Amino acid sequence: MSLSNLDLLNECDGFPYYQVDPDLYAASISTYFELRVQGHDYAIGYMLPSVVEIFRNTPNWTVDDESRILTLAGGSNAEERSAAVMRTFVAMKETKHFKVLDKWRNELYSVNGKNKELLFDVERCATPLLGVVTYGVHLTAFVRTGGKLKIWIPRRAKTKQTYGGMLDNAVAGGIASGEGPFESLVRECGEEASLQEDLVRERVKACGTVTYFYIRTKEAGGETGLLQPECEYVYDLELPADVIPKPGDDEVEEFYLWSVPEVREAMARGEFKPNCALIMLEFFIRHGVLTAENEKDYIEIVSRLHRRFEFPTL
Amino acid sequence: MSLSNLDLLNECDGFPYYQVDPDLYAASISTYFELRVQGHDYAIGYMLPSVVEIFRNTPNWTVDDESRILTLAGGSNAEERSAAVMRTFVAMKETKHFKVLDKWRNELYSVNGKNKELLFDVERCATPLLGVVTYGVHLTAFVRTGGKLKIWIPRRAKTKQTYGGMLDNAVAGGIASGEGPFESLVRECGEEASLQEDLVRERVKACGTVTYFYIRTKEAGGETGLLQPECEYVYDLELPADVIPKPGDDEVEEFYLWSVPEVREAMARGEFKPNCALIMLEFFIRHGVLTAENEKDYIEIVSRLHRRFEFPTL
Repeated sequence: MSLSNLDLLNECDGFPYYQVDPDLYAASISTYFELRVQGHDYAIGYMLPSVVEIFRNTPNWTVDDESRILTLAGGSNAEERSAAVMRTFVAMKETKHFKVLDKWRNELYSVNGKNKELLFDVERCATPLLGVVTYGVHLTAFVRTGGKLKIWIPRRAKTKQTYGGMLDNAVAGGIASGEGPFESLVRECGEEASLQEDLVRERVKACGTVTYFYIRTKEAGGETGLLQPECEYVYDLELPADVIPKPGDDEVEEFYLWSVPEVREAMARGEFKPNCALIMLEFFIRHGVLTAENEKDYIEIVSRLHRRFEFPTL
Repeated sequence: MSLSNLDLLNECDGFPYYQVDPDLYAASISTYFELRVQGHDYAIGYMLPSVVEIFRNTPNWTVDDESRILTLAGGSNAEERSAAVMRTFVAMKETKHFKVLDKWRNELYSVNGKNKELLFDVERCATPLLGVVTYGVHLTAFVRTGGKLKIWIPRRAKTKQTYGGMLDNAVAGGIASGEGPFESLVRECGEEASLQEDLVRERVKACGTVTYFYIRTKEAGGETGLLQPECEYVYDLELPADVIPKPGDDEVEEFYLWSVPEVREAMARGEFKPNCALIMLEFFIRHGVLTAENEKDYIEIVSRLHRRFEFPTL
């Protein structure tokens, strides 16, 4: 198996593009329901009909089969809506309707409206059922020796439920509701890579976002076909040679310090967790590793790493 | 006048997005004609009806009013099509149909198909009439002193026909048909900033692309409303303190070495050539100047600086 960079991108950014294939796009969209919040006449997510079916006759939700819209009708502010959403998913967890709800995290993610206002919070593991945008932070830690980059790459513990044993970014995590990306990153740097807070605050550099529209496969766990538009804030951290990231919990097995060719070969072999491979691609683009001269799909890859969503974002 | 970063982006990326406003998108698209090449059933550009009108009954072109498609029907390969296109525009220049053709450059741009193959070459000044994707290179030259960035910013000669007296990127130019982006950049670095070729080759770093869909205003010169999707390959060049860019021709008046706040203030005052302001925005995102914490439209800006087009690209 040798995956091209476009193959790696296609794994995570599987939702069609209207501007490239309007017919395929229309055919896809027509199978989904829009998720809306009452009083806000725009989509905040796309949902599978099989998921919407379970919301039918559930308090606080209304299904419009004609327009294919599921509306969260309960609650008149963020707090009330969040409580209504929580009650729904707690009940659905009990009734074991959805496998993804078995991985309850007790972590709330925010869902935002067109004015970036909070519409409601929702338990993290339920977000793919709603098809709403989720947010994370991903850090690439590297050293420069003799003008060459070497990159710190962790391997996930084999015991992890999802993507066990696969390669990852130095630090990566989801952003909880109310938390800012930078503060989230600083916290994760300590938890996941045992990096000193002052070193991180001094040296880390925000470098943009990577956005992609993932259609969940069995590797993600739980129901397949669920829609998961994701926005990852990306950061670079150039480390001194004597700072060595160490697993801070049992989620990481070990850290490797690899040359760019070593990383690229592991990517081509499909050893990276799919969205972490995208973060590496974007890092390689910003650092002149991938160029128009050596990557035939350069323009397409750069664009698609920064997809604009159908839904409002933070 | 104080322009936000989103205002600066809106000036260059004015074409609507289907995924954000399908109704506005459909209303816009329905006023245009698609440009196609015979035997290739997809759009390679959007054209104004007022422009298409002039192609009616012109040899080598067919107008389908029902489907709103203008097809280049002459020629069965790139060479023959290029010759047919050239004859058309030479004639239109003579008949003075379009003001944009007064600025004939004797420079050919390439128009490519879905397999990245050359469909035809076309005189540079005619590209906005066809609405096809054009390509350029933009370089940001900077120095780092005491951990602070300072950026080399040229001011365009007041006598330049377009955007005279406005601020620019250190080096910027269009990519001629058949030329690679990197070689184009090296050439422009010598011509526009008097930078030594070996210094450029050793130090310059490819950092991605900036893509946006411009609707031409009067500032661009010639007819307004023409559609101009552009792809700029972006490069960074960190210069030693003792290397000072110098105007290599009479197109640049002088170079300033400005701090980040000085550059940002000039951007907010609208002093930059619009697409050069986008290159600065993207530079600021990659270098941690603009972050999620200090720019409320961060995600939207990052996405829109990397727009995916309706048309095939190189």
